[in-house]
Amino acid sequence: MNELRIFCPATIANVTCGFDVLGLCLDNVGDEMVIRKTDKGEVSITRIEGQDLPLEAEKNVAGVSAMAMLKALGSKQGFEIEIYKKIKPGSGIGSSAASAAGAVFGINKLLGEPFTAKELLPFAMEGEKLASGALHADNVAPALLGGFSLVRSYEPLDVIKLHTPGALFAAVIHPQIEVKTADARSVLKHSVPLKKAIQQWGNMGGLVSGLYTEDYELIARSLHDVIIEPLRSLLIPKFDDVKRAALEAGALGGGISGSGPSIFALCKGQANAAEVAESMAGIYADAGIDFDVHVSGINPVGMRIIS
Amino acid sequence: MNELRIFCPATIANVTCGFDVLGLCLDNVGDEMVIRKTDKGEVSITRIEGQDLPLEAEKNVAGVSAMAMLKALGSKQGFEIEIYKKIKPGSGIGSSAASAAGAVFGINKLLGEPFTAKELLPFAMEGEKLASGALHADNVAPALLGGFSLVRSYEPLDVIKLHTPGALFAAVIHPQIEVKTADARSVLKHSVPLKKAIQQWGNMGGLVSGLYTEDYELIARSLHDVIIEPLRSLLIPKFDDVKRAALEAGALGGGISGSGPSIFALCKGQANAAEVAESMAGIYADAGIDFDVHVSGINPVGMRIIS
Repeated sequence: MNELRIFCPATIANVTCGFDVLGLCLDNVGDEMVIRKTDKGEVSITRIEGQDLPLEAEKNVAGVSAMAMLKALGSKQGFEIEIYKKIKPGSGIGSSAASAAGAVFGINKLLGEPFTAKELLPFAMEGEKLASGALHADNVAPALLGGFSLVRSYEPLDVIKLHTPGALFAAVIHPQIEVKTADARSVLKHSVPLKKAIQQWGNMGGLVSGLYTEDYELIARSLHDVIIEPLRSLLIPKFDDVKRAALEAGALGGGISGSGPSIFALCKGQANAAEVAESMAGIYADAGIDFDVHVSGINPVGMRIIS
Repeated sequence: MNELRIFCPATIANVTCGFDVLGLCLDNVGDEMVIRKTDKGEVSITRIEGQDLPLEAEKNVAGVSAMAMLKALGSKQGFEIEIYKKIKPGSGIGSSAASAAGAVFGINKLLGEPFTAKELLPFAMEGEKLASGALHADNVAPALLGGFSLVRSYEPLDVIKLHTPGALFAAVIHPQIEVKTADARSVLKHSVPLKKAIQQWGNMGGLVSGLYTEDYELIARSLHDVIIEPLRSLLIPKFDDVKRAALEAGALGGGISGSGPSIFALCKGQANAAEVAESMAGIYADAGIDFDVHVSGINPVGMRIIS
C-alpha cells in the first residue's frame, strides 16, 4: 500500500461545560486528503485545493504533524500530501485539526501502524500548535478517536473516548464572519468565580453521565457553559437569537463550536437536527449574514480511509 | 406498620474533583433510628443515645426535616423519633445528613411512601440547613439514593445517581480534632484560576467516565482536587502524610471527606481498603493523635430498614 485517500472529519471542541477538555467528531463534514509514499526522503505538500494555505511543509499543519511523527520514528521515508479542503479555516470546527490529524493518521496507516490512535495525538498537536500557538488536543482527539473525546489532562496527556448515544446529531451553523483567535482569547478571564466553576463541573458530571446512560434529557439539562459562553458569545453576531431558535426548535442544547464563530446544537434524531439547523439558518438569513449550515451524526470512528 | 428501625448511613461529600456536587454512601458506618407513629399530632425526639444533641424537634436536624416533610404533605400525623448516634457530629462523614435523611426516609415509609427518594431531598436539606446554615445536598443525596450521587444543579435541584463499580471500597479515618465549619469556609477563595477550574472539570469528566466503565485506573487518575484540597488540607494535621500513606498502600486516590477532618481513600477491593486504612492509621498513631478508622463498601441503596 503506497497511497491512501482519507476523509478527515470536522470536529467540535469546547462542548459547552467541557471547555478545553471535551470535543466531538462530525460524520459528514470534513476534508479529503491523499497521502502517498515517495522516495524523496521528505514530506512535501504537493497540492491544496479549496483554500489558500501554505504549501511549504514547515508552514503547513499537515506537514509539521507528519514531520514530528517521522522524526519520532526515526524514519527517512518520504511522503507527498494532497489536501482537498472543505472545512473553512477559522470556522471553529477543527479545520487545522483535520489536516494535522489526517496527515499522521494516513502516514501511520502507510507505515503499517507503528502507533495507536492515542499515540498519534502528540504529533497532531504539533500541527495545532503551528495553527494556534497552543498544543491543544480537543479537536485532534475526536478527529483521531471519533465520538466524544475527553482530554482529562495535558500533563501527562490523558485522553478518554466516551460513549456516544446513537441518536445524537449535531446541527452546526457557520456565519461568514471572522472571530480572531486573539480576540476570542482576550475576552477570557484568568480567574472565574468558584460558584460558577462548581456549576460547570456539576454539568460536566451530568453530561458524561447522560452520554453513558443515553439519557437525552439529562444531556439537555447539562449542556451549559456558564463561564466561557457569556464572554465569547459577544463576539458572534446574533448568538443569543441563534441559540434560542435552536432550543425552541427542540435542540437538547448547544453553544460556541471551538472559539467560534460556528454555533452548534446537539439534537435527538436527524430529523430534529435538520429542523434545528433550519431555525438557526433563519436567523442569519433574516439578518443578511452569509452562512454555511451542516447536519451531521456523531462520527464514531474519526478518520476514515476512502480508498 | 407503626414503627420502624432503620440504618442511616454515613456519607462522603466533596469527593475530590466533585467539590460541592459529588457524594457517596458508606455501607457499614451509620446511625440507627427508631421512628413510630403517635397520636400526639407532632414530631418529638424522645431519645438520643451516643451524642449530646438537642431533643427539641425545632433544634434537631431530624425534627426539622420531619416537620418540613409533614408540612408539605399537610399531615397532622404525630411521630416519635429515637436516634442511636454512632457517627460523630463534626467528623465530616455526614452525621447531620444521616439524621435528616433518616427521619424523612422513615416517616415516608410509615406513611406509605407518598414521596420518591428524590422528592425527599428538599426536606432533608432543611435539616442540613439547620446544621450548617446551607441547603446543601451532597450528603443527603447519597444517604437517600445510595451509591455515588451527583448534585448537578441546585436551582432547580437536579440529582443524578451514578453507576458504582462493584469492587470500590472506602477507607476513612477520622482524627479526633475539630475543624470549625467557619474555618473550613474561610480558607476558600471566591474565585479560582480558570486553568485549575479546567483541570477540575476534566477530572470530573474522567471520574464519571471511570465510574460507568468500571475503569479503576481512570478513576485513580481522575481523583484529584486541585482547588479546595490545597487550601483546606492545611487545617487537618498530617493530611499530606496520611494521603501519601494511602497512595503508597495502593489506594486509587482520596481526599478530604466533606469539610474534614475525616480523610477518605477509595480502593479497589476490600483487602486493599483494609491495608490502606491501616497505613493511614499508622500516621496518626505515630503522631499521638486519636482517631477512628472505617473500611466500607459503597452502599448501593442508602437508607435501610432493619426491622
